[in-house]
Amino acid sequence: MQGKGKQEPDVLIEGGVLLSMVEGEPPIRNAAVSIKGGFVERIGEKGDFWGPPYDYTDRIDATHGIILPGLVNAHAHTAMTLFRGYADDLPLKTWLFEKIFPLEARHINRETVYWASLLGCLEMIGCGTTSFIDGYFFQDETVRAVHEAGLRALIAQGVIDFPAPGVPDPEEGIQIARAFIRKWNGFSELISPGVFCHSPVTCSRKTLEKAFETALEGAAPLQIHLSETREEVAAIQKKTGMRPVPYLDEVGILNSRLLGAHAVHLDDEEVALLAERKVRIAHVPESNMKLASGIAPVRKMKDAGLSMGIGTDGSASNNNLDLFQEMDAAAKLGKVFAMDPVSLKAREVLHMATVGGAFLLGREDEIGTLEEGKRADVIVVDLDAPHLQPLYDPYSALVYSADGGDVKDVIVNGRVLMKDRRFITLDPEEILAKVKEITKGFGGGTL
Amino acid sequence: MQGKGKQEPDVLIEGGVLLSMVEGEPPIRNAAVSIKGGFVERIGEKGDFWGPPYDYTDRIDATHGIILPGLVNAHAHTAMTLFRGYADDLPLKTWLFEKIFPLEARHINRETVYWASLLGCLEMIGCGTTSFIDGYFFQDETVRAVHEAGLRALIAQGVIDFPAPGVPDPEEGIQIARAFIRKWNGFSELISPGVFCHSPVTCSRKTLEKAFETALEGAAPLQIHLSETREEVAAIQKKTGMRPVPYLDEVGILNSRLLGAHAVHLDDEEVALLAERKVRIAHVPESNMKLASGIAPVRKMKDAGLSMGIGTDGSASNNNLDLFQEMDAAAKLGKVFAMDPVSLKAREVLHMATVGGAFLLGREDEIGTLEEGKRADVIVVDLDAPHLQPLYDPYSALVYSADGGDVKDVIVNGRVLMKDRRFITLDPEEILAKVKEITKGFGGGTL
Repeated sequence: MQGKGKQEPDVLIEGGVLLSMVEGEPPIRNAAVSIKGGFVERIGEKGDFWGPPYDYTDRIDATHGIILPGLVNAHAHTAMTLFRGYADDLPLKTWLFEKIFPLEARHINRETVYWASLLGCLEMIGCGTTSFIDGYFFQDETVRAVHEAGLRALIAQGVIDFPAPGVPDPEEGIQIARAFIRKWNGFSELISPGVFCHSPVTCSRKTLEKAFETALEGAAPLQIHLSETREEVAAIQKKTGMRPVPYLDEVGILNSRLLGAHAVHLDDEEVALLAERKVRIAHVPESNMKLASGIAPVRKMKDAGLSMGIGTDGSASNNNLDLFQEMDAAAKLGKVFAMDPVSLKAREVLHMATVGGAFLLGREDEIGTLEEGKRADVIVVDLDAPHLQPLYDPYSALVYSADGGDVKDVIVNGRVLMKDRRFITLDPEEILAKVKEITKGFGGGTL
Repeated sequence: MQGKGKQEPDVLIEGGVLLSMVEGEPPIRNAAVSIKGGFVERIGEKGDFWGPPYDYTDRIDATHGIILPGLVNAHAHTAMTLFRGYADDLPLKTWLFEKIFPLEARHINRETVYWASLLGCLEMIGCGTTSFIDGYFFQDETVRAVHEAGLRALIAQGVIDFPAPGVPDPEEGIQIARAFIRKWNGFSELISPGVFCHSPVTCSRKTLEKAFETALEGAAPLQIHLSETREEVAAIQKKTGMRPVPYLDEVGILNSRLLGAHAVHLDDEEVALLAERKVRIAHVPESNMKLASGIAPVRKMKDAGLSMGIGTDGSASNNNLDLFQEMDAAAKLGKVFAMDPVSLKAREVLHMATVGGAFLLGREDEIGTLEEGKRADVIVVDLDAPHLQPLYDPYSALVYSADGGDVKDVIVNGRVLMKDRRFITLDPEEILAKVKEITKGFGGGTL
């Protein structure tokens, strides 16, 4: 007879196929994982290595499922869930300057960022995302929402050279970002603060330098939108006589602290320079397609040795936060762009969304793979659905057949955030009701 | 007081937003649809036009949903659900000749086609597809499965110049197709038989002519894979000195009876000729991406006035039958290919998947839109999910945010096939168990 004590794991996941995502490790069938104090305690075959039965706080049945590391969304603007589908099928400039920016100016404030971030967290938990990299404004409120949700995130305060939500005077942007980093550094092992420089076009050289300094002071990463559109590249060439990547090198911020999102319009020299400087890249295929920004040279970047994750971008340009659909798009777009069906295999894409994302977060020693001693960010995908059977290859099933709605259980840092699709930390009804109320005034209203 | 009698509708759908997909008709909020004897009886605002309360056989609550016409999958090989994920990330020739063809030769028979088709039907019902256009072998069994499922379909028997499942002697292919059409013509108002010529490469001129003759005799359409790959185009140019479209014109089969799937590699003259001859086109973006076949010139084809639907292709090259994901891919791929975010708007893509598909089926007078007097093929998409809120534009929500798992109710020809995600006509447990059993011997097995 055994009582519940400190010696027992907190959570036991049993059954199903485990993909550790460790290089070269084959799937484990009929697997089990025990979790204790936020860490993966033990991984093995079910019933094979536990002696006495434990008395777990929680038990998760993965019999008809795949157990894998939680996905990492490498580029998001979570609070933009508020604008999901508000202004689609428009030219990029109309979309941004006539729709999104005015809406942000009118409606983005502490309260709306808080609720919109909760909605984003709810959606991410619901589709198996356990960590994300976020860049936006009023980020204190995003921290608050993420903390309540129990997710892991790098949350970066935005810096841009024109008035932005919560930053009416651009001169103050850097101070606000600096204060943000000081405030949240050390607050929680799940949350890291950072700086998000909007882009080399919308930030002057001086702003870029100061943003980098601020990141450096706080030992934080610096996010940036990198060569997302042709127009952006042309604007920088006009301004500096250089393409964006060598320009950022000259500014002195092209190094491993820099997280570049999009990275669509790059020539071969830029790819090589990014690799040499160890810049980390977030691939954002669906947004790049939807806004007709272009197709990123992922194969070239991977072959050059660049570290890459996969991101959804904000919900105003995607229009969801589902990394399963994003992986599918990444693999398929990569193949047709290279005209090679062997390019960007399912396993490689899943690697980007787990191990790759963990590296972008700077947490590759803690998460991204399922290994004993690592932090327990784990999800279970239910396979008992018509669109997931038969199943010959779990990587294929996850990337090409599954979507976020197939995720059954979500654990972050050993804490169960969703069980059998029931949310534990957040109240979906309250959040949806509040978001509907907030967005009623946006024009168009909500159904 | 009113009893249940012939005067009452069979099904009443109430609440939510109705998209009729009729050109120029705005969405109806708080809508209701009554269905009787397989037809849409009345459409309007809820509570606005019914006098006495009816006693319906069935009542569907669409309060938090969108009511729209069922989707039409314009190109499928349903029984290929058996090979979902069996051989991914391989060169096209290895995939087809070393994996799919040998597997078909060994394992495709009456029994496996029946169960695999049931699985496909289950999946399609589960993601809101109410009609589809299918081409494969042993199609008697597909008819049987579709009839049991209660779906609407054009089911075409395959013709190809080498040994195929159930057609060991290619000479017999045409006879089998002719017998198939005679057998099933008039069997059910939901099912139409047809002929499926594999491609102008794998079928000789004589086979193409005979297949067309057979279709003509049976007043049936002729499906064909049209210019799917560069290699196919090159092979036809080598054989005939012509590109595929003018070649088919010379053969005499380029007309409104022809349903061309894929249509990737077309020059401008071919697009114009296809339009002039009123050939109907199935756009299959995800398969074209995954097999790296190329990107179809959809904008050009639409602008030339071609009638187009959207298809998933078989599950061996996609790997699911979800038209919501396919619409998303079609819109996004169309935009990035044209480098124009205004190209292929959400509403246009949804039009292709409903009205367009109905036209390909030759049933545009019966289905494709929600109108009084048309056949009742209706679905309800549940909007009460984090990834679907807030909602400003229902077309955007369906194409860019939703996936098949958000479909709540499915009605075909007035019969409810799925209600609150519970399958009515098919038994998922039995089908999944049987498919797992069948595919155990395929190598790799199923989880």
